[in-house]
Amino acid sequence: MNEFELIARLTRALPTNDSVVVGAGDDCAVLDLGLPDRWVLFKTDAVVEGIHFAPDAPPEKVGHKALARCLSDVAAMAGTPTAALVTLGLPPKLDVARVEALYAGMRELARRQGVAIVGGETTTNPERLLVSIALVGWVGKGKCLRRSGAKPGDAIFVTGELGGSLAGKHLEFEPRLAEARWLAEHFPVSAMIDLSDGLAGDLRHVLSASGVGAELLASAIPISHAAKRAFRDGASQKPPLLAALTDGEDFELLFTVASRAAVPLLDAWKKQFPQLALKCIGKVTAGPAVTLRDKEDLRPLPAHGYVHFA
Amino acid sequence: MNEFELIARLTRALPTNDSVVVGAGDDCAVLDLGLPDRWVLFKTDAVVEGIHFAPDAPPEKVGHKALARCLSDVAAMAGTPTAALVTLGLPPKLDVARVEALYAGMRELARRQGVAIVGGETTTNPERLLVSIALVGWVGKGKCLRRSGAKPGDAIFVTGELGGSLAGKHLEFEPRLAEARWLAEHFPVSAMIDLSDGLAGDLRHVLSASGVGAELLASAIPISHAAKRAFRDGASQKPPLLAALTDGEDFELLFTVASRAAVPLLDAWKKQFPQLALKCIGKVTAGPAVTLRDKEDLRPLPAHGYVHFA
Repeated sequence: MNEFELIARLTRALPTNDSVVVGAGDDCAVLDLGLPDRWVLFKTDAVVEGIHFAPDAPPEKVGHKALARCLSDVAAMAGTPTAALVTLGLPPKLDVARVEALYAGMRELARRQGVAIVGGETTTNPERLLVSIALVGWVGKGKCLRRSGAKPGDAIFVTGELGGSLAGKHLEFEPRLAEARWLAEHFPVSAMIDLSDGLAGDLRHVLSASGVGAELLASAIPISHAAKRAFRDGASQKPPLLAALTDGEDFELLFTVASRAAVPLLDAWKKQFPQLALKCIGKVTAGPAVTLRDKEDLRPLPAHGYVHFA
Repeated sequence: MNEFELIARLTRALPTNDSVVVGAGDDCAVLDLGLPDRWVLFKTDAVVEGIHFAPDAPPEKVGHKALARCLSDVAAMAGTPTAALVTLGLPPKLDVARVEALYAGMRELARRQGVAIVGGETTTNPERLLVSIALVGWVGKGKCLRRSGAKPGDAIFVTGELGGSLAGKHLEFEPRLAEARWLAEHFPVSAMIDLSDGLAGDLRHVLSASGVGAELLASAIPISHAAKRAFRDGASQKPPLLAALTDGEDFELLFTVASRAAVPLLDAWKKQFPQLALKCIGKVTAGPAVTLRDKEDLRPLPAHGYVHFA
């Protein structure tokens, strides 16, 4: 049983109440707490030493990453983060300087994105450092972007460049909050997700939530320099295109938009975010097949996004 | 450096914003998200195998405890819980039955208290099971009970019986949500906290937040049968009164109330909650001393509440 099968089993028949707009299964939970024009977003995410970061990773970057992952999920729903709680699982022999540096990394990102840190908790986790972030944010009522809205014919877009994140980006990425809100405000975005498990895997989350398929164009997939370098140097056995399709932790936005909006979107994006690439990588189909067009071939897309439980 | 010193250091100069009513340092964070008549409560709490529960503890009870601890913090502010997210740190060799039983324990408590479980996350924590709960709830604007409101002359009350929780209660306690809301609605409660670190330690959190002291009456402290039995059987070296003062994880309510309300409160309580003891255990003083009156003696109260980092 892998992570996704376990989650599917656990999230059957969960207790609910009148506040729940979106429960388990999207980037954030969405709650209606009675605000006239806003829904509340609610999310948690944890990073664990030796799993999500190396024991010698700079602690400022670990703190940054822990908060940035949660913010990336808020971005994926076109939301705005409000406040965070920090849970630290700490080995008993306390390295105070390490914990303070971790907090410094979180504080800096929180300040830049306007997020309040309103407390949290420390507990003992004897063998390894664990950082879990809980976040509340908001989105205009009816304005949050779900995974489930993609329609046949929609164009599929991705921000930035993909693959090879482990070489450094996974500790330094900036969550795409401003970009996601701008997209939702100006274009008919039909579905969105942030890329945490890898393009091939996360695309499938969108397609299966939407009941559609897709055809991707191999030559359009934006491949990072890090993925090319890792293959060239022998640090990775994955050909760069495969790395871009299946490496995890890109934390870029993957979204679908009505095809008539594709060209105006690309033009407007270039003016609004000249530093960040945006690529149309394919189109939504009636499905359910997911294929990759590579020169003359049309091949099934390998489905093995990065799955946390092997 | 112990847990409280570390937290004090980390919570200096945290980023804030307009939403923050109460940040780090009380039972829950309190946020003003724009609701006309309500504040939002926000809390996280984690339990770790081998620290908060034994490896052979029944998993249903572990799930119950993980959620109940968070609900107890909402109770301590006289709030109502709305929705929870569940973060599971799991060893790679997955025991599906154990995880499902854990969820069953959480679901049952959530249903009984009207709490929606709206998702969460699974991650790898190789050596031990970890369950972290994030919770949002609400309280009427200006109606939440803080730690900081105790005034000299106030009577100090505690619900239930204290000490010896490790014999079983720590896995089975029911958070005092209804009791706390009833108290806040009907009586001039000036400060409240839930007992997680032990009476002596948690009382000090209230007194130091309020800038006052206290005099407790030893003969009035409600001592649990479990604490008496553990001492009699040799399972614990702590005399029962010391256990009631310093054992952790009672999850009862400790609160202060204007002294004129003490007798009417005791009368009304007996009718409203006949199954649950309520004891007046002393009074708030101008401070800063915290003393225990024991027959003719007036002794300083041992300050060593249970501190998680030794």
